[in-house]
Amino acid sequence: MPEPTRHPIQDLYPDDVAHCYGCGHLNERGHRIKSDIEGDETVTRFTPQPHHTAIPGYVYGGLIASLIDCHGTGTAAASGAARAVAADPDGAPLLDESVLDGSVAMPRYVTGKLEVSYRRPTPLGPELELRGRVRERRGRKVVVDITLSAEGVVTAEGTVVAVEMPESLG
Amino acid sequence: MPEPTRHPIQDLYPDDVAHCYGCGHLNERGHRIKSDIEGDETVTRFTPQPHHTAIPGYVYGGLIASLIDCHGTGTAAASGAARAVAADPDGAPLLDESVLDGSVAMPRYVTGKLEVSYRRPTPLGPELELRGRVRERRGRKVVVDITLSAEGVVTAEGTVVAVEMPESLG
Repeated sequence: MPEPTRHPIQDLYPDDVAHCYGCGHLNERGHRIKSDIEGDETVTRFTPQPHHTAIPGYVYGGLIASLIDCHGTGTAAASGAARAVAADPDGAPLLDESVLDGSVAMPRYVTGKLEVSYRRPTPLGPELELRGRVRERRGRKVVVDITLSAEGVVTAEGTVVAVEMPESLG
Repeated sequence: MPEPTRHPIQDLYPDDVAHCYGCGHLNERGHRIKSDIEGDETVTRFTPQPHHTAIPGYVYGGLIASLIDCHGTGTAAASGAARAVAADPDGAPLLDESVLDGSVAMPRYVTGKLEVSYRRPTPLGPELELRGRVRERRGRKVVVDITLSAEGVVTAEGTVVAVEMPESLG
């Protein structure tokens, strides 16, 4: 039996909400980060470009905030999907890898609040790894804690309070 | 008598720390935001590009975080300079427009903590205005509160805890 297809979280966003500069697969000028699920964590990896500089030699803090933001809303979306596919929504796990099989569209979450603590300078050059954990999922709100590391050292931590997008933002 | 020359805060960063993607005047691919002082506030304006999308029609939250971050560290730098030029540092004002005359180099601040609250979606198209106020300056630390508005409506608020850069980040 063939392995089931597995998609990054962001590739399962509906096309009409897939243009985000950080994570939309339809934004050709954006970062197009791709988040996966590994057990009770989400993970994405991203290698900054040379111009993503803060102080020379270190990664721009705004990019770090952007990566945390998009990986956070992606994690929230996956958590929302885990609840949506569960037979018992109240007992649904916070994350469920089966939602990546492409059979369900990801709900789209937007950021209500973003917090980033820069623990130490992040070296510019190495691939960065972000890991997310769902702290809480209640109603339309999901709180995600994220660490960002370079070469195995955590350099920044963040929290994203994400809210499922209403039908209209107007 | 001619008007004294007046520079944006970021143009007074020493050249070796002027490559920030958000605000370094030497980063040709960056946003190169320019912050000014108006009384007890700082102000910068920035018009996002069409690809700086979140949900279509609205500004990418990571860009909003980036603008708040860089305007915050710029405001902190100006506050540090105000103390540096004061005859009585303990009694120095939190901001002082005279530091923009080019006679002093700006000290360089880095972000320790960034918080952004997205109050409502920010429309993509209009120029954005960010205003900063120094909440606290103590030792090497400056706390800056920032509002971001589009067409006169505040859409995001943020706080930057900035710390004067040590001689070496290593």
